[in-house]
Amino acid sequence: MAPAGEKKNILKRLDAGEVVIGDGGFVFALEKRGYVKAGPWTPEAAAEHPEAVRQLHREFLRAGSNVMQTFTFYASDDKLENRGQTLSFTGRQINEAACDLAREVANEGDALVAGGVSQTPAYLSGKTEEEVKAIFIKQIDVFVQKNVDFLIAEWYGPDILNSMHAVCADIVGINCHFDPETCVKTVKLMKEGVEKAGLKAHYMSQPLAFHTPDCGCQGFIDLPEFPFGLEPRILTRMDMHKYAREAYNAGIRYIGGCCGFEPYHIRALAEELEAERGCLPAGSEKHGSWGSGLSLHTKPWVRARARRDYWEKLKPASGRPFCPSMSTPDSWGVTKGHADLMQQKEATSKEQLEALFDKASQGH
Amino acid sequence: MAPAGEKKNILKRLDAGEVVIGDGGFVFALEKRGYVKAGPWTPEAAAEHPEAVRQLHREFLRAGSNVMQTFTFYASDDKLENRGQTLSFTGRQINEAACDLAREVANEGDALVAGGVSQTPAYLSGKTEEEVKAIFIKQIDVFVQKNVDFLIAEWYGPDILNSMHAVCADIVGINCHFDPETCVKTVKLMKEGVEKAGLKAHYMSQPLAFHTPDCGCQGFIDLPEFPFGLEPRILTRMDMHKYAREAYNAGIRYIGGCCGFEPYHIRALAEELEAERGCLPAGSEKHGSWGSGLSLHTKPWVRARARRDYWEKLKPASGRPFCPSMSTPDSWGVTKGHADLMQQKEATSKEQLEALFDKASQGH
Amino acid sequence: MAPAGEKKNILKRLDAGEVVIGDGGFVFALEKRGYVKAGPWTPEAAAEHPEAVRQLHREFLRAGSNVMQTFTFYASDDKLENRGQTLSFTGRQINEAACDLAREVANEGDALVAGGVSQTPAYLSGKTEEEVKAIFIKQIDVFVQKNVDFLIAEWYGPDILNSMHAVCADIVGINCHFDPETCVKTVKLMKEGVEKAGLKAHYMSQPLAFHTPDCGCQGFIDLPEFPFGLEPRILTRMDMHKYAREAYNAGIRYIGGCCGFEPYHIRALAEELEAERGCLPAGSEKHGSWGSGLSLHTKPWVRARARRDYWEKLKPASGRPFCPSMSTPDSWGVTKGHADLMQQKEATSKEQLEALFDKASQGH
Amino acid sequence: MAPAGEKKNILKRLDAGEVVIGDGGFVFALEKRGYVKAGPWTPEAAAEHPEAVRQLHREFLRAGSNVMQTFTFYASDDKLENRGQTLSFTGRQINEAACDLAREVANEGDALVAGGVSQTPAYLSGKTEEEVKAIFIKQIDVFVQKNVDFLIAEWYGPDILNSMHAVCADIVGINCHFDPETCVKTVKLMKEGVEKAGLKAHYMSQPLAFHTPDCGCQGFIDLPEFPFGLEPRILTRMDMHKYAREAYNAGIRYIGGCCGFEPYHIRALAEELEAERGCLPAGSEKHGSWGSGLSLHTKPWVRARARRDYWEKLKPASGRPFCPSMSTPDSWGVTKGHADLMQQKEATSKEQLEALFDKASQGH
Repeated sequence: MAPAGEKKNILKRLDAGEVVIGDGGFVFALEKRGYVKAGPWTPEAAAEHPEAVRQLHREFLRAGSNVMQTFTFYASDDKLENRGQTLSFTGRQINEAACDLAREVANEGDALVAGGVSQTPAYLSGKTEEEVKAIFIKQIDVFVQKNVDFLIAEWYGPDILNSMHAVCADIVGINCHFDPETCVKTVKLMKEGVEKAGLKAHYMSQPLAFHTPDCGCQGFIDLPEFPFGLEPRILTRMDMHKYAREAYNAGIRYIGGCCGFEPYHIRALAEELEAERGCLPAGSEKHGSWGSGLSLHTKPWVRARARRDYWEKLKPASGRPFCPSMSTPDSWGVTKGHADLMQQKEATSKEQLEALFDKASQGH
Repeated sequence: MAPAGEKKNILKRLDAGEVVIGDGGFVFALEKRGYVKAGPWTPEAAAEHPEAVRQLHREFLRAGSNVMQTFTFYASDDKLENRGQTLSFTGRQINEAACDLAREVANEGDALVAGGVSQTPAYLSGKTEEEVKAIFIKQIDVFVQKNVDFLIAEWYGPDILNSMHAVCADIVGINCHFDPETCVKTVKLMKEGVEKAGLKAHYMSQPLAFHTPDCGCQGFIDLPEFPFGLEPRILTRMDMHKYAREAYNAGIRYIGGCCGFEPYHIRALAEELEAERGCLPAGSEKHGSWGSGLSLHTKPWVRARARRDYWEKLKPASGRPFCPSMSTPDSWGVTKGHADLMQQKEATSKEQLEALFDKASQGH
Repeated sequence: MAPAGEKKNILKRLDAGEVVIGDGGFVFALEKRGYVKAGPWTPEAAAEHPEAVRQLHREFLRAGSNVMQTFTFYASDDKLENRGQTLSFTGRQINEAACDLAREVANEGDALVAGGVSQTPAYLSGKTEEEVKAIFIKQIDVFVQKNVDFLIAEWYGPDILNSMHAVCADIVGINCHFDPETCVKTVKLMKEGVEKAGLKAHYMSQPLAFHTPDCGCQGFIDLPEFPFGLEPRILTRMDMHKYAREAYNAGIRYIGGCCGFEPYHIRALAEELEAERGCLPAGSEKHGSWGSGLSLHTKPWVRARARRDYWEKLKPASGRPFCPSMSTPDSWGVTKGHADLMQQKEATSKEQLEALFDKASQGH
Repeated sequence: MAPAGEKKNILKRLDAGEVVIGDGGFVFALEKRGYVKAGPWTPEAAAEHPEAVRQLHREFLRAGSNVMQTFTFYASDDKLENRGQTLSFTGRQINEAACDLAREVANEGDALVAGGVSQTPAYLSGKTEEEVKAIFIKQIDVFVQKNVDFLIAEWYGPDILNSMHAVCADIVGINCHFDPETCVKTVKLMKEGVEKAGLKAHYMSQPLAFHTPDCGCQGFIDLPEFPFGLEPRILTRMDMHKYAREAYNAGIRYIGGCCGFEPYHIRALAEELEAERGCLPAGSEKHGSWGSGLSLHTKPWVRARARRDYWEKLKPASGRPFCPSMSTPDSWGVTKGHADLMQQKEATSKEQLEALFDKASQGH
């Protein structure tokens, strides 16, 4: 276990041409495990149930992740108290606990710790730049004090961008909201833009592990299946092999994931890039890349699937003949500052909900 | 924490009319987390990575499970050494470790421990009744010594049934291989048969968390998607509500799951049966049944989904327009004792695999 | 052109082991051409637009049909005046015109004329046996006078069956309502029943040209797509090849079609059974069986489809990613004699329709 | 019956703001009726089976078409003799017969006759401009002599465009190859271009009656389903209502169809635009717009479908659970002049076919 300071930092790794495998999305994975509430999506589990968060970090490390993102998504105080949520931990406590957990597990391997900064309700509610900045700075204070290796800022408007400039302008990329295919395409466009401007950068992609060919420009939150009917869209490990290859071919070298990613998805990325990285992850001890582990199966027709071309060609059925293959996204056409987007401390009232239910019914 | 002996045993619970919520499948869940190898599917993680197994037990307990099944699927010595697998733990060590973990977590709540007995390659290979029985007895020895509360025998022929009679003939049901709809239908038929014979029993169902309307009589192993392309078939929590209700209406009172079940699936069962059980699971603290937690979401059109009828009516899209909704199962038509089914200690050779690949290609 | 009397009759043909190719459904084909009204589905076009009916007969003859069914479906006076329909032709005029057209075209080849008898609203409305019989006898009078070669009775209850006994008990089969797969399976069951009873018969199938795997016991009328959204279910000519082969293998020798069949569907049946029948239909002059005509296509990748295995393996896409592959049939659970099924001379009133619209909305 | 000269010509109609309803595709409709051979797709039926062509013209007229296109698609001598086809009629005879049939039926109503000019194999084979022009001029000679009301040129390169300029530059639009959605979108782009250039024009769309969201830039010929597996893609009459409305809203006033259109599709266009055109077509006597005719149906749950919103909301199922909803088009990447595209008089040889079959297999 190397002290944090002695690890090669992220830019050095990327400058040296290394492929950096990211980790997956904690919010969705821990929701399924019972530690995050869908709706507020806040990360109090870092303080409340550290053993669950630690275990998930370990699984990603074992799957090949070179980076442990702190589980600090939506950990700003305004978000923690939004719409009637009452928690027994402060934002500071959660952010500190999350940093400690990420560092603890990162040091069990050779991984780096990345502080994760995300959108705040204050922004959507149209608060001033000052107010929004103040919220971010509070969170970043913890990251600085806890000595994280670098920051990943999740989503932000043009003003916020400036204040981040010094920290992370060297890596640009896409996080969440769209499937790998869309993300890789978008990063390609960013790369073209950067190169046209005569600049240089490293590229990152952290897409969803859900197929979203039918998403509009706002991403998967608008899909009618979000968040409790997304199962049929989950990517297979074979889809992940394809993603890793396409991202690599597009010049992306920080390849990770976001919502929907489970440890086996990250492992598939690491396995696809075995030659480029010169190693397999620890978790591959319990896996045969591209199905080869099936040669140990009891039934002969399953052993017959122990080969790459079988899985590459498979078009997996949904077992859902009454369901379509694509959806029409909701799109109420409201943007930052619109009354519908105003956040509030108190819980959504019954009347407010009824109004929303009506609005939704008319839209369909 | 009550000593095991003071808990109400399984039959007393069922006789009293209680609904018993089972747990989910460890093999698939731990494969995705990186601790089980698809192919051999053996449970050495109980001894190798106890923290991962313990965490999964805790998540099921938190989701509402009243039973912790020991993670002892395929833990017979002949299976552990099948087709070239080499492990550093004996079957006895694994079985003992699994019993200890299940007991430890069961006692963190009011859950019972069930010893899990499963099929052995010796049976498929056509070994004698004596040989097969010997393998089972070795495993059951551990269960007796470790004082499990009851046994669940996973799959067995008519002869084996007799030796189990004293232990568990009072609960009959279905485990694995098919989706909830099929399982509930089948248990209904069993119930009719039992009642026609003037007998009484309790009923159990532990189906897959995969939709399998297209399965033949051998179940999901024959589906071309098994085991690495099953994602689009994963049941949603809404599907689970429906399953819990239908199982309950069919008179089933031991309602659990098998492969594909994640903790949130079990939580959905417990939430659907809140009124019948008189309680919600601990994990519901991080969940609003039927989507109600979404009333805390930032975006108004997602808050508009915070209601039961939205999720009941949703037909979730797969995001996979190039994939069909149903598959044709493989079915080579071989049964117990057939040469193709003979197991072996040594790894499947390249020549053996090539022969299987050819056979599979011709079949399509 | 042989006088009708000199042609080999239907039973002689079947007794001699010949395969008899039927024709297709006039009601649906002529509705698409603009001569039949969906809803009443009555055949006044035989008198009103004889050129259109004659042309369709010719196309079926050219496609290989050995039988011209008179276009007399629903040509009873009570049906012609049902629910507000006003027509300028009587049932007798329509029946006579239809017989003349069928005979005219039949004699352009070696085809036989079959009188088509169908269900009457009087039956559904619960009229007495006498009343229902009287309606049938009126229609049969025309057939006898016009000297049709044999009768096909479309659907009827047990009482009516007796009065038909002398005429057509020698051929039993299935008409309309289900797809070929279901029809062939059902005729197989009928055949087993007949043979178990020590009887002999010839077998007929005249299924839909629509895929209906999701139909309940009442057939395609209950599908939500009936009748204006059935397009995605239309069988391809390749599906027809399969149907012809399976019907033949099941011992069916009168192989035809019903609603949805277009001339090219009948041609496909005749082409599949070329060897068994010893001839190709005239229409095959404009067709290459199994796609072979594509060897004359301009584009090379279309010429590459000029082979049987290409079309046998093709799983045709719907181009409809927002649509499911299966539907839930409507089923109001009403049967003969129920108030909802009462027929009436006058048009359905606005109030009656509103009540139905409400009932339908609640059911979904 | 007005003499041709006294009818209002096409530009006068469009200049006056009238909506002109076109007709549908003869090639596909007559192939299904048994008079056109898929592969060469030539229109010899105009001379060989005039009664079949006349009947189809009448059905389109009855459905509301204001234009009868001469059935002269691919009626050039080089195409008639391409790839081993031997016909007993010359191009001139076919073109003349087609003009006579179109004029005969057009004069039964108030329709105009449009001469149809299409691509010639000479163009694909890379013949000189002179050679290609000579072929076109031969066909246009007949049109001039037969006094057609205007010409529609189906597809052509930039050189040919010039020679057409005087004849039809006043109407621009899209024919065949793509579905209505794509065509309307494309015409919108053309309109923007024309208007940006400060020009004026009338706009036409004659799309396929097949859904082709998955088509590449070459259109439906490249889809693996072309031409014998397109059934699941056929548009419903409700899809046609939508097309008519969108085309109208886009400023298109010549609204017709191409391959796949049957008379009932054209009738749906005319019914959607009843208010704009001030009339319903004759064929609507046998139709109730938007399903209203179903108020006469025997079964109450079908009467409950006699309303617009039922059909507007319906997502029709395919009944094909083993099929996907989208396909990957073939695309060999060859263009005009490439060896693979060379046409020949003699039939495609077995060796040539084998080479194509191999090429196709490797591509998948």
